[in-house]
Amino acid sequence: MLKNLYLGIDIGGTRIKVAIVNSEGIIFEESSIATDTKSKPVNVLKGIVNVAKNFKNYSKIKSIGVGIAGDVCFQTGVVRFSPNLKMWRNIKLREILTNLTNKKVYVDNDANAASIGAFYLDAKGKTTDLVCITLGTGVGGGLILDKKLYRGITGTAGEVGHITIDAYGKKCNCGNRGCIETFVGAKYLSKFVQDYLKNKNSKIINRLVGKNYKLITPQLLAQAAKEGDKIAKRIWKMVGEKLGIFLSIIINFVNPDTIILCGGLSHAKKYFMKYILQEIKTRAFKSATKACKIVVSESNHKLGVVGAAMLSEQ
Amino acid sequence: MLKNLYLGIDIGGTRIKVAIVNSEGIIFEESSIATDTKSKPVNVLKGIVNVAKNFKNYSKIKSIGVGIAGDVCFQTGVVRFSPNLKMWRNIKLREILTNLTNKKVYVDNDANAASIGAFYLDAKGKTTDLVCITLGTGVGGGLILDKKLYRGITGTAGEVGHITIDAYGKKCNCGNRGCIETFVGAKYLSKFVQDYLKNKNSKIINRLVGKNYKLITPQLLAQAAKEGDKIAKRIWKMVGEKLGIFLSIIINFVNPDTIILCGGLSHAKKYFMKYILQEIKTRAFKSATKACKIVVSESNHKLGVVGAAMLSEQ
Repeated sequence: MLKNLYLGIDIGGTRIKVAIVNSEGIIFEESSIATDTKSKPVNVLKGIVNVAKNFKNYSKIKSIGVGIAGDVCFQTGVVRFSPNLKMWRNIKLREILTNLTNKKVYVDNDANAASIGAFYLDAKGKTTDLVCITLGTGVGGGLILDKKLYRGITGTAGEVGHITIDAYGKKCNCGNRGCIETFVGAKYLSKFVQDYLKNKNSKIINRLVGKNYKLITPQLLAQAAKEGDKIAKRIWKMVGEKLGIFLSIIINFVNPDTIILCGGLSHAKKYFMKYILQEIKTRAFKSATKACKIVVSESNHKLGVVGAAMLSEQ
Repeated sequence: MLKNLYLGIDIGGTRIKVAIVNSEGIIFEESSIATDTKSKPVNVLKGIVNVAKNFKNYSKIKSIGVGIAGDVCFQTGVVRFSPNLKMWRNIKLREILTNLTNKKVYVDNDANAASIGAFYLDAKGKTTDLVCITLGTGVGGGLILDKKLYRGITGTAGEVGHITIDAYGKKCNCGNRGCIETFVGAKYLSKFVQDYLKNKNSKIINRLVGKNYKLITPQLLAQAAKEGDKIAKRIWKMVGEKLGIFLSIIINFVNPDTIILCGGLSHAKKYFMKYILQEIKTRAFKSATKACKIVVSESNHKLGVVGAAMLSEQ
């Protein structure tokens, strides 16, 4: 039986991915273009449609889904604001794309799209209740409950990054204090390491960044740990412990069968994963922990575009 | 049109409530008996069935639902353990009750039953996504998402009491640290007040308990606040602030349209509610906060029995 085909579009700050995907999340055709942040959104969308129309199977697609970072209204398909795309303010993305293609169009934020992607690619659609956590510049996420994306009443559900783990901790961008993002979001983590190194001395890190601590990124911190740097290892232990506290809350409260970690930080899993598991062991309910698989995505770079394509199945 | 009728049974540590309820959650007939904690569960259940069979509408009921505190398996209908009922260990409640009545029987824990009760009685079945929080000896709760009880993969979902708000705080009964229950659960709160009063002096509280601080309960603390006691008021402020931190997490992460507070502590709402709202204002997402009604149940004592009756609708 011929499976349904869908077009997925993942609009990122530097690149836009476009793909044709079947109903199992398998990519049939894919392409990508640089994100032209200075062009009008309508022109960017015309460029995307041109790429899509060159796909062999374009005429067979059932619908189009778009994932984009920022404040996106699923119901209206309007992008109110996208942090890395200054021109995208109150853009009627769904309306524009429908007019350009005459297809049914779905729009959602990138974290929701990634969660759907993780559901199809990492969990092969076989999980029932899944929490996806994107560990990037910030911490995002999404909830797939009973095999469907759960958005909540205004679409902010699954915003795991703003679960507080230290109520009187550092101020977070969101206005609250001590959100998990203030500990492990790449932006905050890099700043923490800069401050931490003021009174410490690491030959390895010094060599990697030439004492310019502003260049420290999680990737670099993983490299330092790989080279045996003790300070880097200690910081990854802290990251693991904080993530363990955070995941214990999620395990107890959501009781999912699967938690999928994705995003840039997840590549450093070998330096923090054991501390996550240690914390969970001492903190979360035993039965709920036993029932919950914690995995790191193996399809990181595809999650957004595949999840976007599958929005219509949600 | 005649609505369906259901039998609800709420098995508590001191009393068992039994009622016939229609599909809107309205009680048609009700009764209650003392809980005989020393009898065999099968005999207790026979007593309950006798009460039920005396109801005028008993022959019309479509199914039976039971709510009981403790570790209860919804799928098998087995009560593995119930904290206040020592005889109830690995009791096949559903099987016994089915044999006694020849009716379809549903069994769940009391917090899930109360959440369903709050959905019908307080929200009149009109909410989509509801979080119910029972503030009693412990802190329990339940999630009604998309109008259905969400249980998670092993039935522990919605265990709000063990959301951590101070990762390095007091040890909680569950094994974790700094769960909201360790701040506002009546047991922990009473102990906190006892310790707090060691270096403080309150004429009003002294008069109420005759310096026997072990007698302090949340009810008494509400009485002291009512009489103008400054220490009691300060403690309710602390309770409100901790609940505000906790509810902010829930508002951001679940994005519900309604949060219902119930249980013993909720009667003291006038002493802590404004502090909850203050914290939420500074901590939670504005759009999600605006979309979320926070209410105190007006049907506290009926939630369990009505929710139990409605289990079959879930």
